[in-house]
Amino acid sequence: MYTNYKLVKNAAGRLVPDNVNGEAAIPFMGVDKYKTEGRIYGKKISRIADYPNGDKRVATLRDALISSGLRDGMTISTHHHFRNGDLLANMIFDIAHELGVKGLRWFPSASFPCHEHLIQYLEDGTISHIEGSMNGPLGHYCSTGKMSKMAVLRSHGGRYQSVQDGEVQIDIAVIGAGSADLFGNANGLEGPSASGLLGFALADSEYADKVIVVTDNLKPFPCMPWQIQGNNVDYVVVVDKVGIPERIVSGTTNVTKSPDRLLLAEMTAKFCDETGLIKDGFSFQAGAGGTSLSVGNYFAEIMRKKGIKASFARGGSNKYLVEMLEEGLIGYILDGQTFDLDGIASMRDNPLHTWTSPFTSYNYHGKGNFAQLVDVVILGATEVDVNFNANVVTHSDGYLLHGIGGWQNCLYSKTVILPLPLFRDRIPVIVDEVTTLCGPGELIDVIVTERGIAINPLRTDLLEKVQGSGLPIKTIQELQVEAEQICGKAQKPKLGDEVVAVIKWVDGTIIDSVKRVIE
Amino acid sequence: MYTNYKLVKNAAGRLVPDNVNGEAAIPFMGVDKYKTEGRIYGKKISRIADYPNGDKRVATLRDALISSGLRDGMTISTHHHFRNGDLLANMIFDIAHELGVKGLRWFPSASFPCHEHLIQYLEDGTISHIEGSMNGPLGHYCSTGKMSKMAVLRSHGGRYQSVQDGEVQIDIAVIGAGSADLFGNANGLEGPSASGLLGFALADSEYADKVIVVTDNLKPFPCMPWQIQGNNVDYVVVVDKVGIPERIVSGTTNVTKSPDRLLLAEMTAKFCDETGLIKDGFSFQAGAGGTSLSVGNYFAEIMRKKGIKASFARGGSNKYLVEMLEEGLIGYILDGQTFDLDGIASMRDNPLHTWTSPFTSYNYHGKGNFAQLVDVVILGATEVDVNFNANVVTHSDGYLLHGIGGWQNCLYSKTVILPLPLFRDRIPVIVDEVTTLCGPGELIDVIVTERGIAINPLRTDLLEKVQGSGLPIKTIQELQVEAEQICGKAQKPKLGDEVVAVIKWVDGTIIDSVKRVIE
Repeated sequence: MYTNYKLVKNAAGRLVPDNVNGEAAIPFMGVDKYKTEGRIYGKKISRIADYPNGDKRVATLRDALISSGLRDGMTISTHHHFRNGDLLANMIFDIAHELGVKGLRWFPSASFPCHEHLIQYLEDGTISHIEGSMNGPLGHYCSTGKMSKMAVLRSHGGRYQSVQDGEVQIDIAVIGAGSADLFGNANGLEGPSASGLLGFALADSEYADKVIVVTDNLKPFPCMPWQIQGNNVDYVVVVDKVGIPERIVSGTTNVTKSPDRLLLAEMTAKFCDETGLIKDGFSFQAGAGGTSLSVGNYFAEIMRKKGIKASFARGGSNKYLVEMLEEGLIGYILDGQTFDLDGIASMRDNPLHTWTSPFTSYNYHGKGNFAQLVDVVILGATEVDVNFNANVVTHSDGYLLHGIGGWQNCLYSKTVILPLPLFRDRIPVIVDEVTTLCGPGELIDVIVTERGIAINPLRTDLLEKVQGSGLPIKTIQELQVEAEQICGKAQKPKLGDEVVAVIKWVDGTIIDSVKRVIE
Repeated sequence: MYTNYKLVKNAAGRLVPDNVNGEAAIPFMGVDKYKTEGRIYGKKISRIADYPNGDKRVATLRDALISSGLRDGMTISTHHHFRNGDLLANMIFDIAHELGVKGLRWFPSASFPCHEHLIQYLEDGTISHIEGSMNGPLGHYCSTGKMSKMAVLRSHGGRYQSVQDGEVQIDIAVIGAGSADLFGNANGLEGPSASGLLGFALADSEYADKVIVVTDNLKPFPCMPWQIQGNNVDYVVVVDKVGIPERIVSGTTNVTKSPDRLLLAEMTAKFCDETGLIKDGFSFQAGAGGTSLSVGNYFAEIMRKKGIKASFARGGSNKYLVEMLEEGLIGYILDGQTFDLDGIASMRDNPLHTWTSPFTSYNYHGKGNFAQLVDVVILGATEVDVNFNANVVTHSDGYLLHGIGGWQNCLYSKTVILPLPLFRDRIPVIVDEVTTLCGPGELIDVIVTERGIAINPLRTDLLEKVQGSGLPIKTIQELQVEAEQICGKAQKPKLGDEVVAVIKWVDGTIIDSVKRVIE
């Protein structure tokens, strides 16, 4: 565990370390308060003479890693488009272990239960630490303080920002691709390991020193469209199997059948309708969870009834969103990741369904991003507090079990709505203070629960619009009291003082720390 | 005229200045000999907070230029997709002149006769000099030594390289677009000023400090596909008319009817056939000139006869290439610019016809480029010498009248063929030494003339293949003698000692100087 830091209070009142693994850290200064004078990271200049004939194939991943100069202390990046079906990250660190390389920083866009295999390499020092979302076992491992350095969690946009700004310098990026050609052009649209798109690897391809594309589906040049541009790629490796198809995407997506969740979804849609958020030409984003999916379906019903159309929807895409596009209820899908086979087919075949990236959609350090243009976004949370601050990474017991995803970035959309059950497993979701602060309350507009809807007092416009609507509007304090009357006060998790991970805000500053869980 | 330099001899034996307008210059060191240790240019980091709601519209181009901080000595870039129908460059410098701004460096990807209007601003000091291809009047003006600083000519790939490497730092890029949205996403596929694609402005959008998109066809967000990404754009301006449609693209393209050119084209195709260059899965690029167009048609005939197919063709596209794609004779068109309405429609509607950019196709300072993967490229030249060195920018009278285009970059293709008439206006095209060296002879493989074909002695493989083919193979010296027997020796142009422009090689070094013409 890294302990060589002092804690300082940031603008959100949270204690955060003054450095992360020896590199100075900037405490969160408030929403839109931090402005860097820095410049975009400039990688080393390459020249085509060192890539004769443009044929970049090498025999094995091991060869590619050795040719890339793999050595102690390097930063190795991977992406998570293969989700829980990824085989590549485990392969990489198996090779590193065989080669006796130590102290690697793993910089995945996210890790999944399939990467539990890597705990042995955190134990033996092959991997020093992880900077990236940790869904499940690795997050649990980190929470117990066993990782030798501090973890860093970023949003999708924050990950792009950190690479673009040179905050994280990637030595070797390994990009698994559904299809690729000998030049390194790659996409996720076809092949046994099709994942739809490869946007989470975009920054890696653009800024890493060495870039390795690994595919199980080599196509003749040109592999089109080039979601990853071969002009950024050093080596191409063909393997038998880069992922487990049925774990990469589901064959199909099903909406929730839970009556509680359906109620939340319906209330959310009704709120949006009554407040005029659903109107001709509006835009929305709904996550991949069961509730969010259902919200989309209720939106569709309302649009059909009114005879109106959304200008665009942001994905995660799935068959429901694709059906809405095909029905003409949505003008375009701007997609960040595909969750099922219908999503992939639509992205491949329908020009109105296009891939985006954390650069286009989420990067705070750009000249605008798409999230700003979205009218309504529906998100989840593990906890919210009475100031509308929200947590998406830790559970009420303090364990770090989820990544941030695009959640923080989506808070920049025009109206942010969190449909949440008032309690989970008899633990209230509305708390006095969130265990981990991921999103400042000033950016969160509405909490929809099964027992009432709370509107952030900052949104006086919405408060006005619900007057006389018959919607069950309450204050967030009222909702908290109701929950506590049923379940009692939420218990505080048992946490040590040691910081095991930091949560970055979208601008690269540190918004909160994750403390060690006392087991 | 800038004169504060010393001349040094470069590896090609040409005298080049040791600095260009006060900035140190690197003399050409030989093909693939120069290797920089530099890094890609990093522009200032932006943040979305400074682009509220992502709506970047301002009322006028004047407003956008003022907001961009237009001031003395800045570098202003434009692209040439509107070719001789461009209205934008003239507008920009009219505004600069009104505002009294002086000493601007104009950095167009190319200039055309429509920009003759700007000579007044070169005269009055609004514009200090031009770095970019000068087709026609501006080139003529430069040749006479009237420009107050030295001009710099680069290939399309070299222009990308210079921007990417920070050799040229663009203060304000102004990008005319057939279509754009309020966020700055833009493409050239639709609208009255459709130009097909906007690849020549890609580097400008990525690396300029401020980026202004100007359109006469504002579309609702999202303007798709985003050939220019709004995330790189600062301001969006809507004007009545950004270009003159009939001068941007021709309604249609016609192949040459000149019997001389048709003969050259036929001989070129026959050469490619006899030497086995035309085979199933081969790739080719033919320029937009009449001869090159006809070569494509002869290729098509041969492919039809043999029942084979090209894997891809690189454009400039036009109706002939589009017809070949639709007939199935070509797998893909990888297009750098569209020359007629059929080209635009195909690029818009046919997923097998895609846009490329100087980054993908031509940048020498990348991890490979597409030009390397092309089997046969057909190019032009104003002169070649007995060592196969070629000139594409000056005429035999010494006037600088053409840009380099992608010509230098295409020399990296596997076989480079120049079909050339043996003489033009009774002046031999094969000379003892080219007036201006643009491409080293070692990269040029074959000269096809109406009186015989010369193969570069370095290409022993080709020399072997033509044995017994019946093709009229001669040495380049034999061709020179034949021409001189008819026309006499080519006269040397009357040139002063002063350097008015330099020609960059693809790696940023200086391959030759252009001298003042004595009128």
